[in-house]
Amino acid sequence: MDIYSVLERVRAQKPLVHHLTNWVTIYDCANIVKVFGAAPVMAHAAEEVEDMAALASALVLNIGTLTPDFIESMKLAAKSANKKGIPVTLDVCGAGATKLRDEKCFELLDQVKIDVIKGNASEVARIAGEKVRTKGVDSSEVEKDLVELAKTLAAKRNATVVITGKEDIVADKAKHFIVKNGCEMMAHVVGTGCMAASVIGAFSAVEKDLAKAATAGLCCYEIAAEIASKDSAGPGTFKEKLFDNIYSLDKGKIEKLQRVE
Amino acid sequence: MDIYSVLERVRAQKPLVHHLTNWVTIYDCANIVKVFGAAPVMAHAAEEVEDMAALASALVLNIGTLTPDFIESMKLAAKSANKKGIPVTLDVCGAGATKLRDEKCFELLDQVKIDVIKGNASEVARIAGEKVRTKGVDSSEVEKDLVELAKTLAAKRNATVVITGKEDIVADKAKHFIVKNGCEMMAHVVGTGCMAASVIGAFSAVEKDLAKAATAGLCCYEIAAEIASKDSAGPGTFKEKLFDNIYSLDKGKIEKLQRVE
Amino acid sequence: MDIYSVLERVRAQKPLVHHLTNWVTIYDCANIVKVFGAAPVMAHAAEEVEDMAALASALVLNIGTLTPDFIESMKLAAKSANKKGIPVTLDVCGAGATKLRDEKCFELLDQVKIDVIKGNASEVARIAGEKVRTKGVDSSEVEKDLVELAKTLAAKRNATVVITGKEDIVADKAKHFIVKNGCEMMAHVVGTGCMAASVIGAFSAVEKDLAKAATAGLCCYEIAAEIASKDSAGPGTFKEKLFDNIYSLDKGKIEKLQRVE
Repeated sequence: MDIYSVLERVRAQKPLVHHLTNWVTIYDCANIVKVFGAAPVMAHAAEEVEDMAALASALVLNIGTLTPDFIESMKLAAKSANKKGIPVTLDVCGAGATKLRDEKCFELLDQVKIDVIKGNASEVARIAGEKVRTKGVDSSEVEKDLVELAKTLAAKRNATVVITGKEDIVADKAKHFIVKNGCEMMAHVVGTGCMAASVIGAFSAVEKDLAKAATAGLCCYEIAAEIASKDSAGPGTFKEKLFDNIYSLDKGKIEKLQRVE
Repeated sequence: MDIYSVLERVRAQKPLVHHLTNWVTIYDCANIVKVFGAAPVMAHAAEEVEDMAALASALVLNIGTLTPDFIESMKLAAKSANKKGIPVTLDVCGAGATKLRDEKCFELLDQVKIDVIKGNASEVARIAGEKVRTKGVDSSEVEKDLVELAKTLAAKRNATVVITGKEDIVADKAKHFIVKNGCEMMAHVVGTGCMAASVIGAFSAVEKDLAKAATAGLCCYEIAAEIASKDSAGPGTFKEKLFDNIYSLDKGKIEKLQRVE
Repeated sequence: MDIYSVLERVRAQKPLVHHLTNWVTIYDCANIVKVFGAAPVMAHAAEEVEDMAALASALVLNIGTLTPDFIESMKLAAKSANKKGIPVTLDVCGAGATKLRDEKCFELLDQVKIDVIKGNASEVARIAGEKVRTKGVDSSEVEKDLVELAKTLAAKRNATVVITGKEDIVADKAKHFIVKNGCEMMAHVVGTGCMAASVIGAFSAVEKDLAKAATAGLCCYEIAAEIASKDSAGPGTFKEKLFDNIYSLDKGKIEKLQRVE
């Protein structure tokens, strides 16, 4: 996959990425989009989300600190995005933790068109209505199960499904990719999962094949993380260097480090 | 202009700067005020904003993630600030993007006294009811147009008007300043615009000539940014070093680097 | 006190720490909990806070950007925490500034069981219904007064009371500790107070003696801050290095640097 060319398009087109996201990582979601060269906008008032989504090239929803009103704004924004034909990414952040989260995820999935569903293994399993089968002893067996899960959900919801983890799985009903980039330090900083959804949103604005878009975005993001972690004393400096390294990511680094199957 | 003496007063008087701002950059708005030596407080409940504004020495409003309720709290806070006679700065963040933003900006401008109106060229043009005339080929012509725009709006609204950009224009009905400090990296980090409004707020608390206050604040902020950017590998470390350099800003650096006309 | 062993338990047990906190420092509150090795979750919808608190091992409440609705969610979460028997920490952030803050603090203290009350000297004095007696000229006299204040409030509210400052006082009705760690730079960054409450919450999840838990947490946090400040050019880099140094804190550093009486 020519990952750099997708990044180049993000930088050249500077797509507007409208977010309705959580209050914990809202700054990081905006900042990573900007550092990738795109243009973030965060707006959640029911009175303006339709107008804002109509200006945007992609929409990102994240239920991390949901309330019922906020979900209603998400629906309005998503319907506007659907009407305009721009891709909608949903981070099912915390699905499975409370009844409210599950119910609202299903409402969103049933009432609007979600183009990319993104979560970790247990969140996506919950959305798929299944338990995660993690009985496999070696990681290749777990991975096989998760690919199956992603593909089934992709077919059921007519969406691209992204399962993040040590290895990320990106699947639509016809194909799948595995992104093997990334580093352990990402798990020690709040917001790396939310930022992944924002990156997918930014890349979805410039590449119609959404599985390819998500894969390219995750690969770039995680290569930058790998470089940053090598040069960091801990999670604080790591996060700042992550932004530095996204900003300075180039063709040479991507071609040398990309591990996508 | 003796810019350092205004900074000295901020550091000596440590004014309380009450904010009703957006949820994306709220931390940075608070932090930059603190790093400049003043005291930030963020409070938005309708039930307490009047009390909080009455304790403060300046009020900063930012509509970046507005809702109708939030705007009502802003009005209460601003009326309390008006009553006490402390300066009110409004960042018309995103004006022109949606109908809601325009309407609410005009409501604020019509119903309370706003002392400093701050935005980028297109936002301020919208608030002035004009299109930005950017037909000028060389930047000096654009600048001339923007100074005119700022002065006209300043006279119409009896306020100081700040147009941020590569060069910042600060105008009241009688005079104007141009701040030529700043660096390109500021455009690659989320929050530099919002922080500018907070800095203006902090400086407005200690200098009655609000055009001078805004100019001094922007100049200090952007000198620190220039120093930070020279020593940064990218936008992540730049932002942290920006805070470091504001904290350690001194008379010598300001006198050497200030570019105000 | 064997402080390192409490930190070890946080890292080993990775307790889930549910927060209803303010919108300014919400990221830092989550991140410091994660960097200490625990698991933060931020959730405030009335419809899910009971469920979320029931999953958690500690609850942290912070009224920094309170609204009446938000306080109602806090009560639901706290009642659920009380029922489950997990410790509830309340940061009385800004108590004394407005009538709303005072009223809502008292409502919380009266209607639910708060296990740890945390604030600075003036905030805690307000909650205790007293003026801070800071007439003492030398700091040892002030300290003696504050220990008395903390003990009286601890007995009245059947809680552990934490007064943060240059020296932190931790008291229950039977005993008290004084944490003499920390550094001046902590006062120049927004969020160090809020993060202290989150740290106390994380440590309260693994140590039943809450005065000991709070003391151990503050000591670890402030040792990391001391190390970070020695290596920082200012408040921006300080904050990132604080996270680095919490992450890499070990037995040797704690034993060498701890100053608890």
